[in-house]
Amino acid sequence: MRKNGRKADEIRPIVIHQGYLKYAEGSVLIEAGNNRIVCSVSIEDRVPPFLKGSGQGWITAEYAMIPRATTTRNIRDSVKGRIGGRSHEIQRLIGRVLRAVVDLSSLGERTFMVDCDVIQADGGTRTLAITGSFVALVEALWGCVDRGILSRGIVRDYLGAVSVGVVEGRELLDLDFEEDSNAEVDMNVVMTGSGKLVEVQGTAERSPFDREALNRLLDLAEKGIGEIIDLEKRLFERGLP
Amino acid sequence: MRKNGRKADEIRPIVIHQGYLKYAEGSVLIEAGNNRIVCSVSIEDRVPPFLKGSGQGWITAEYAMIPRATTTRNIRDSVKGRIGGRSHEIQRLIGRVLRAVVDLSSLGERTFMVDCDVIQADGGTRTLAITGSFVALVEALWGCVDRGILSRGIVRDYLGAVSVGVVEGRELLDLDFEEDSNAEVDMNVVMTGSGKLVEVQGTAERSPFDREALNRLLDLAEKGIGEIIDLEKRLFERGLP
Amino acid sequence: MRKNGRKADEIRPIVIHQGYLKYAEGSVLIEAGNNRIVCSVSIEDRVPPFLKGSGQGWITAEYAMIPRATTTRNIRDSVKGRIGGRSHEIQRLIGRVLRAVVDLSSLGERTFMVDCDVIQADGGTRTLAITGSFVALVEALWGCVDRGILSRGIVRDYLGAVSVGVVEGRELLDLDFEEDSNAEVDMNVVMTGSGKLVEVQGTAERSPFDREALNRLLDLAEKGIGEIIDLEKRLFERGLP
Amino acid sequence: MRKNGRKADEIRPIVIHQGYLKYAEGSVLIEAGNNRIVCSVSIEDRVPPFLKGSGQGWITAEYAMIPRATTTRNIRDSVKGRIGGRSHEIQRLIGRVLRAVVDLSSLGERTFMVDCDVIQADGGTRTLAITGSFVALVEALWGCVDRGILSRGIVRDYLGAVSVGVVEGRELLDLDFEEDSNAEVDMNVVMTGSGKLVEVQGTAERSPFDREALNRLLDLAEKGIGEIIDLEKRLFERGLP
Amino acid sequence: MRKNGRKADEIRPIVIHQGYLKYAEGSVLIEAGNNRIVCSVSIEDRVPPFLKGSGQGWITAEYAMIPRATTTRNIRDSVKGRIGGRSHEIQRLIGRVLRAVVDLSSLGERTFMVDCDVIQADGGTRTLAITGSFVALVEALWGCVDRGILSRGIVRDYLGAVSVGVVEGRELLDLDFEEDSNAEVDMNVVMTGSGKLVEVQGTAERSPFDREALNRLLDLAEKGIGEIIDLEKRLFERGLP
Amino acid sequence: MRKNGRKADEIRPIVIHQGYLKYAEGSVLIEAGNNRIVCSVSIEDRVPPFLKGSGQGWITAEYAMIPRATTTRNIRDSVKGRIGGRSHEIQRLIGRVLRAVVDLSSLGERTFMVDCDVIQADGGTRTLAITGSFVALVEALWGCVDRGILSRGIVRDYLGAVSVGVVEGRELLDLDFEEDSNAEVDMNVVMTGSGKLVEVQGTAERSPFDREALNRLLDLAEKGIGEIIDLEKRLFERGLP
Repeated sequence: MRKNGRKADEIRPIVIHQGYLKYAEGSVLIEAGNNRIVCSVSIEDRVPPFLKGSGQGWITAEYAMIPRATTTRNIRDSVKGRIGGRSHEIQRLIGRVLRAVVDLSSLGERTFMVDCDVIQADGGTRTLAITGSFVALVEALWGCVDRGILSRGIVRDYLGAVSVGVVEGRELLDLDFEEDSNAEVDMNVVMTGSGKLVEVQGTAERSPFDREALNRLLDLAEKGIGEIIDLEKRLFERGLP
Repeated sequence: MRKNGRKADEIRPIVIHQGYLKYAEGSVLIEAGNNRIVCSVSIEDRVPPFLKGSGQGWITAEYAMIPRATTTRNIRDSVKGRIGGRSHEIQRLIGRVLRAVVDLSSLGERTFMVDCDVIQADGGTRTLAITGSFVALVEALWGCVDRGILSRGIVRDYLGAVSVGVVEGRELLDLDFEEDSNAEVDMNVVMTGSGKLVEVQGTAERSPFDREALNRLLDLAEKGIGEIIDLEKRLFERGLP
Repeated sequence: MRKNGRKADEIRPIVIHQGYLKYAEGSVLIEAGNNRIVCSVSIEDRVPPFLKGSGQGWITAEYAMIPRATTTRNIRDSVKGRIGGRSHEIQRLIGRVLRAVVDLSSLGERTFMVDCDVIQADGGTRTLAITGSFVALVEALWGCVDRGILSRGIVRDYLGAVSVGVVEGRELLDLDFEEDSNAEVDMNVVMTGSGKLVEVQGTAERSPFDREALNRLLDLAEKGIGEIIDLEKRLFERGLP
Repeated sequence: MRKNGRKADEIRPIVIHQGYLKYAEGSVLIEAGNNRIVCSVSIEDRVPPFLKGSGQGWITAEYAMIPRATTTRNIRDSVKGRIGGRSHEIQRLIGRVLRAVVDLSSLGERTFMVDCDVIQADGGTRTLAITGSFVALVEALWGCVDRGILSRGIVRDYLGAVSVGVVEGRELLDLDFEEDSNAEVDMNVVMTGSGKLVEVQGTAERSPFDREALNRLLDLAEKGIGEIIDLEKRLFERGLP
Repeated sequence: MRKNGRKADEIRPIVIHQGYLKYAEGSVLIEAGNNRIVCSVSIEDRVPPFLKGSGQGWITAEYAMIPRATTTRNIRDSVKGRIGGRSHEIQRLIGRVLRAVVDLSSLGERTFMVDCDVIQADGGTRTLAITGSFVALVEALWGCVDRGILSRGIVRDYLGAVSVGVVEGRELLDLDFEEDSNAEVDMNVVMTGSGKLVEVQGTAERSPFDREALNRLLDLAEKGIGEIIDLEKRLFERGLP
Repeated sequence: MRKNGRKADEIRPIVIHQGYLKYAEGSVLIEAGNNRIVCSVSIEDRVPPFLKGSGQGWITAEYAMIPRATTTRNIRDSVKGRIGGRSHEIQRLIGRVLRAVVDLSSLGERTFMVDCDVIQADGGTRTLAITGSFVALVEALWGCVDRGILSRGIVRDYLGAVSVGVVEGRELLDLDFEEDSNAEVDMNVVMTGSGKLVEVQGTAERSPFDREALNRLLDLAEKGIGEIIDLEKRLFERGLP
């Protein structure tokens, strides 16, 4: 039995507060276990240099933690004067997977800037941030559709993400901080509503794993992501923009 | 009449969620109007170089906003690679006023690191952050007393802060974002429970002001801070550590 | 009696060398006690982004010390790769108070860049820098008027600044370094020629102060600033541009 | 047919120049297609703070490109003043996978610092850098064993890496720059000599992929890595240190 | 006798691999002793601000070492977040001497960006980098002439560079790392094909030197540079562009 | 005839204000033409890592300009977040030449930190800064001798520096800003009291020069430096410490 009586193939309940920030075009506070992440979407009328004149839009993300999101305090990136490697890696992932389900040519020359700020961290913040960002992005895009700025047909599919891993020999879904710290294998999986893979990042933290283990972990992830996408579908009664 | 039917000498109701962060030694989510600030206190077993060997402790603060705390998105300090001037100014203020009511020699060689992260901003974040930080600090200090690490007699007095200003010729207490943007005079006041001044920062944003106006604004601030300190006293039934 | 036989309500004599720098549009070397500050004004044909197309000008300031301006050597900001918090705070103050007495709409889309470089520091550099910057700015503006670039009616009033404080229980005008280091209360006051307040920044370094003390300190500041503005008037026989 | 007559399941021939740098404890120039990477290992008598006193060693990596390694010139990270996100991501990967096959407790409190400098890039530099780094690390470790500093039993298994992907619907092994630029799915796979997975990073650049595609791509990777590990075995006649 | 039987007035044999990088407009790998430097030239359709609209071009250089180019590992400039003083000094030198033999007005508004990346260092990298950069630049310029972008008459003369010095009282040509570390006087000399001086940088590392020693060292340098320019002439059968 | 009736072989009169800064161990304001430079020496009880435990001291320098030292305003290095290449080059030169005439082993493990801050620039600031720094350093060292911290025998010889150059075909001593801007050849020379060379840096800004020109320029420099060292000798009646 896991902490709080969770089963090996059970995700932590996710709570999503939509419209959490008053000013952002889309925003949520997403919570699961002790994780608490604010995801916001800001729309800017510019695109990166390589897209200028292409008529196409862009989606990019930034990820940060407040200093005491974790058990010990982290020094702010602004004090260090640079973004840490872990943040860099996560924010590149978030931007990439969101772009994979959006028709960028339908956005016009606009950038959808996603900010994920972790208020409290408890394992799996990168996958929870993906789920939260997707919901905030859909909210922002529905806003554009409602105001007549964009036409429907923008988002091709739902998107959900979860972590899986091997801890003390057991294959577990949705690792919390303590489980994550002891994981032999750690995997982040991002999938669409139609069950296709968008990103698989599996890492042998301690011991290399075989193809069978990979497949069993993917089965677990598929189950968890299915539940997350069901939740998203309940939030968006009128479907995707 | 002001927005939401507020009177000139009326503060916005303040809501303080104590123990908001699971890991921090002290923490609050403090809300007033659309302001929403997380204040946390982390205790570290080190002091700045100029205090090494003095037996004395230190209190310092950092202040930041998440990018979409405001109507338009701000570029992160970590992306700019440096802390902005406004943040620098505010975090120096917060550290200074907290130190003014604490007996640093009673802390031992420890640093109480205060982090104020603004999730949403609506005018007066620096004064609200002072109030929130004071509550989080008291919580952290009571924790030290309860665990026998420190002895009582640490905090000399309550501490509260509020902004006042002149907007279209009217003297107002606790300016919200819109009022603040149009203020001719803008003043931040920090006072103790016994009604003494810890900090007065008055700025003629548009038109210089006379001594009488200064005094009327201080009267308003005194009223507002009195109410804030009453709230603090209700939170700490057993008084100050 | 204070050092050099100064009375409690006596400022240190101020010496202003106008036109100190050959190339700058306006410049002074201002000295008081052991303070020695070079203030220069450079006119640039651009404004910050938020003023582009407004037809309005801007005044901004930068403040720095050379490394051995103080008793111990300070590491250069360029070596640290960032501007320190204290410098940030001071340069924001200088820009703000200069803008308060200038009609920015009369400047055209130009930036008046004020540089304050402290060659030697002896308490009260930020207020002395304000006085020096005001004189250098007036010099630069008269130059613009004389060359027919701008028309008179630019500067609304004189501007002077001084520090006051409480040291070992005594209320003193114009604290020098030693007094400043021991001050219980430290206040910087900026006023116009007509005796109005532009900025009041009072800080309880050690012990909170009451409203009566605040008023007595403001009386002291008013006296000192009056003398400073008299000096400025003698420098500018033809008045303000 | 692919460029140079390569088949879909064929890797580019790899040439490894061992001992390429005179001063480094281990070093190679590794070439494949137009890729040309210098990998070096430097041994330092210190470990990161979290390992001090643990008796355990560490392996970490840095990855960079010279400015004209690519078709257009890149601005140096030193000029930008920060490491780019892509470099951050890759160097974290290299360090992580090397640590997965090494018994860190057998290293003593030493850091093996791996530097991968890409002189010319042609697709798949991160996987080629892993292979090159592994060879340089083994060289450095054999050196330690030969000088009696470390005892055998350090490296648990061989390590090889390759990229696979889907390009215009075809599943290909070891993508070159042009193929990589057009890939719908891009995957980096790191495996041990015994065929276990150390890292799988699959990304849907354009279109999400299903589990069957993932498995076919892993089959391709397994074939390529097998050949790479055969090459490594030929280089190290006396096996692993 | 010097290491490898070299005489006092003998340079180390230089090997130049032209066209070393596939993508750069001009590039060489230049080797001498254990020195190994990649020099590349990238052409960009922009000039520094001070040349905009002048119709004139520009040549500038950047110089860096990979971390393990030297006996002990150097921290990367990108990790330190700034370019080191030595690199700054060298890259300014390289750009300056190349500009001295090129008719900038014949380049059009283009920048020829020279990158010198030291793969391995063995004394005299700055002078070897000048020679290598000159060859890569000529290659890039011939390319422009051949494609009809520029007309001949661009490069006024050949350019070569060498170091000389006094080591244990002996005047030596082309110091290697060990000799350089023990030099009492260290001098870098850059000359044209017609024997004129472009740059002389002589430094008394330990003991000041007299005019006679200066002249003897210049004689040595003249001999070495003559040989280097002979080598360049053999590389460019059709002369200078 | 040159500006102000100067002859080709005439230096600008140099004025040295000794003890210019109250707090520094040694300091001067040095002026020549419109040049105005503050040089200070700060003694610190630490040495760079490579000298720890050697019993030997160190001398190092930093060089900067205030923003409006020049005809147009320069952006501060602290704002750019890095030291410019020119400053880097100059401060390395100043430190190096001072070390060449000082017996570092007689200093104990102390660093003599020289700061050169240019208040106004008019050509030749780097050589004037060397002369000023030497005087400030001697002042600081005499102070150490007088307080019994160091014993005499520290400074081996006097040190002076001057620039020479070719302007419109004429060989000139001590170029001012205007001459320097038009120089075809620019040379900085540093010599000892006994007429030996410490540093020669000659640059063909426009047209390469021959050995005869080099020798005539060195003759000019020798004359100028002789006069500078005469001035130094008059300042230090009791000779060198």
